[in-house]
Amino acid sequence: MSNVERGEEKETGRVEAFSDGVFAVAVTLLVFAIPVTHPDPNNLTAGRHLGDVLLHEWPNFAAYVVSFITILVMWINHHSMFQMVQRIDREFLIANGILLLLITFINYPTALVASYILTPDENYAALLYSGTLVLIAILYNWIWRHASHKGRLLNRQITVAQVTKLGQEYRFAPFIYLVAFLLSFVSNWAGLTVDAALAVYFAFTGQLTRPTTEKKDVPLHHG
Amino acid sequence: MSNVERGEEKETGRVEAFSDGVFAVAVTLLVFAIPVTHPDPNNLTAGRHLGDVLLHEWPNFAAYVVSFITILVMWINHHSMFQMVQRIDREFLIANGILLLLITFINYPTALVASYILTPDENYAALLYSGTLVLIAILYNWIWRHASHKGRLLNRQITVAQVTKLGQEYRFAPFIYLVAFLLSFVSNWAGLTVDAALAVYFAFTGQLTRPTTEKKDVPLHHG
Amino acid sequence: MSNVERGEEKETGRVEAFSDGVFAVAVTLLVFAIPVTHPDPNNLTAGRHLGDVLLHEWPNFAAYVVSFITILVMWINHHSMFQMVQRIDREFLIANGILLLLITFINYPTALVASYILTPDENYAALLYSGTLVLIAILYNWIWRHASHKGRLLNRQITVAQVTKLGQEYRFAPFIYLVAFLLSFVSNWAGLTVDAALAVYFAFTGQLTRPTTEKKDVPLHHG
Amino acid sequence: MSNVERGEEKETGRVEAFSDGVFAVAVTLLVFAIPVTHPDPNNLTAGRHLGDVLLHEWPNFAAYVVSFITILVMWINHHSMFQMVQRIDREFLIANGILLLLITFINYPTALVASYILTPDENYAALLYSGTLVLIAILYNWIWRHASHKGRLLNRQITVAQVTKLGQEYRFAPFIYLVAFLLSFVSNWAGLTVDAALAVYFAFTGQLTRPTTEKKDVPLHHG
Repeated sequence: MSNVERGEEKETGRVEAFSDGVFAVAVTLLVFAIPVTHPDPNNLTAGRHLGDVLLHEWPNFAAYVVSFITILVMWINHHSMFQMVQRIDREFLIANGILLLLITFINYPTALVASYILTPDENYAALLYSGTLVLIAILYNWIWRHASHKGRLLNRQITVAQVTKLGQEYRFAPFIYLVAFLLSFVSNWAGLTVDAALAVYFAFTGQLTRPTTEKKDVPLHHG
Repeated sequence: MSNVERGEEKETGRVEAFSDGVFAVAVTLLVFAIPVTHPDPNNLTAGRHLGDVLLHEWPNFAAYVVSFITILVMWINHHSMFQMVQRIDREFLIANGILLLLITFINYPTALVASYILTPDENYAALLYSGTLVLIAILYNWIWRHASHKGRLLNRQITVAQVTKLGQEYRFAPFIYLVAFLLSFVSNWAGLTVDAALAVYFAFTGQLTRPTTEKKDVPLHHG
Repeated sequence: MSNVERGEEKETGRVEAFSDGVFAVAVTLLVFAIPVTHPDPNNLTAGRHLGDVLLHEWPNFAAYVVSFITILVMWINHHSMFQMVQRIDREFLIANGILLLLITFINYPTALVASYILTPDENYAALLYSGTLVLIAILYNWIWRHASHKGRLLNRQITVAQVTKLGQEYRFAPFIYLVAFLLSFVSNWAGLTVDAALAVYFAFTGQLTRPTTEKKDVPLHHG
Repeated sequence: MSNVERGEEKETGRVEAFSDGVFAVAVTLLVFAIPVTHPDPNNLTAGRHLGDVLLHEWPNFAAYVVSFITILVMWINHHSMFQMVQRIDREFLIANGILLLLITFINYPTALVASYILTPDENYAALLYSGTLVLIAILYNWIWRHASHKGRLLNRQITVAQVTKLGQEYRFAPFIYLVAFLLSFVSNWAGLTVDAALAVYFAFTGQLTRPTTEKKDVPLHHG
């Protein structure tokens, strides 16, 4: 929004606003993965009932928290990447659109995992959940490669080192999410635990891009 | 937001913000067209059940993806058009409002199509779906004609060639969506397939408007 | 956002962004007032069924359209008012918050009216609907009076004539919505019809405030 | 957005946009805590029924209003705090993310309290509601302490007095929400009443931060 340089305008304003909206709605709707129970009208004096219900709903609470952190980390990634992007083109918009489709989709496997985690059917839910995260990680690679190839869509002040560093982070992610996906075939719990651990791991290690570059490095575009 | 020129302020800021919000919420709510199944409490060991459910829910997944891409393409259109618009007036706000009403409405025929696609009733769902897309295509024509008539609401740097090109794209769309609508009377599948194909087609061919015009052309307003 | 003048910053940016978000979500959720029917699994060959359902759901479609236009007009009002507001204070934020509460609440009486319009109970739904609109009209008066009293929170370029004109529009509205409310005691249909007519009327007559004032008039603050 | 000073850019733009989106969606979804009743199809002439239903739903209306005001006050707090913040870092983003998780979560205990308030089970609902508010108050302290420690992330024009004043407000809140939480063990009604009173109290007393500092005070960073 303020990365204007040499009279070249940052074109990503409305794409960021729209993407922020989708991320914000998707992350807020996750709370509906926790079903609201209602008192039994025939047994209002039963007592302790709600306490039991809340305890038995722990998979829903867990799924809500893990998916919230996952989408939050995806948003921080998105934010970091767009800090460096100055221009847009069709492929960038299409890839970003498919990424948003997958982000909103997370609500579905989240609800499935919460609903099926204690049944033998849970396998399909865990695979769908992990599989969605693999696809999202691939999408980030697609978007970043397209945007950064020969600095195509980047802010001219971005340095080669910054591009390389972010690219390495992204390249790493699909493989480790694939491990979680494959683990789900052996044990749903192992797969989902890796997914949860990855959300926390990336929250603490993912690169934060500042709008102001450090200028100690070779810029991408200057001759 | 930054198209300020000759002291004339871009008036569309909050209209864009509001429209982005509506598009973002509408597109995110589509995921609820996929119903979350719950395990059968009397038969937790049945197994394989969820796999079957997911296979049988393919119309819901298909409807979700097609409507997501459709709304996304509508948003890119909206974005491209508003890049060129500098001023607002009442008719512009009213037409944009009706467009947003139709965008949010898409959630309803999407859910209907997903629900009825395998029944004889599906005809009504397909007609409502295709009919909504015809109306949206007409709305884009209304908005663009009103905004671009004698350059009424446009940025003064927009050229005649740009206006003509976008107008031609928009003029084309209602007729081809009408073909999908009419095809639905003969075969629901044919109609819906054309709608899906159009979403993909427009994603790959729709015009992307840059905020900076190329200045090789005759500007609309300079004498 | 760009009304910066004499080094005085427009303080309403995030209040507008938050309000736009609430309006956008509230208006998009209205589509859920139209229940998605599902095919009867025991009678898939019944045919024509969905056509009948859609015809019988006309109150839901009507309620959706009327409430959509109503909230849209409220948003245009909000937009026009905030064009003139430069500063915020506590009372302004509180009044705007209560206004947003009522805007989001419209979803509830909309669904009630749609659900009860063909039953004797409809009276309560119509009263709740009209009553909410009376309260919203009163809130606009509160906010505008507070903001414009001695030009308290306004942009210094706003003229006395502009303040008076908008104030007159707002003063008019609660009384005419009160007529709809009182009519609902006699006839629900009369009350709701007046509400619907008012939405359309205000869409076509409500004042649109330009960010650039016309400067033909006496400014509020210059000595 | 316009706090640019000495060439240092405000980094919080998209974090504010995303947070505003989450607050706006969370506050708008609260209306779904009021269930929409449907007429009894076997007894359409029963009359007066809806009036009774609305009266019996008063806990839902009360929960909706109290939670709306609570989230609104949280948003005003968030707005005031971010007025002073110039830079972001990882801990700030993580803490803000957890805060947003708790804000969206409020929808769940709100619906529970509304559903269980007239049953013996209500105790768990009241504890979950009050407990969430305690955690939110703690989060505000975490975020502010981290941002303001040695002025780490603040706008350089913020004065020591402003930092101290806001810090004192935040330090106060967790303890008073803890009182409401503990009161809920003795009496649900007492606990929830204190929560409601606090929402109103903070709406009328919470600090509003202006983007322009008053410059009567010692700035934090100048030597």
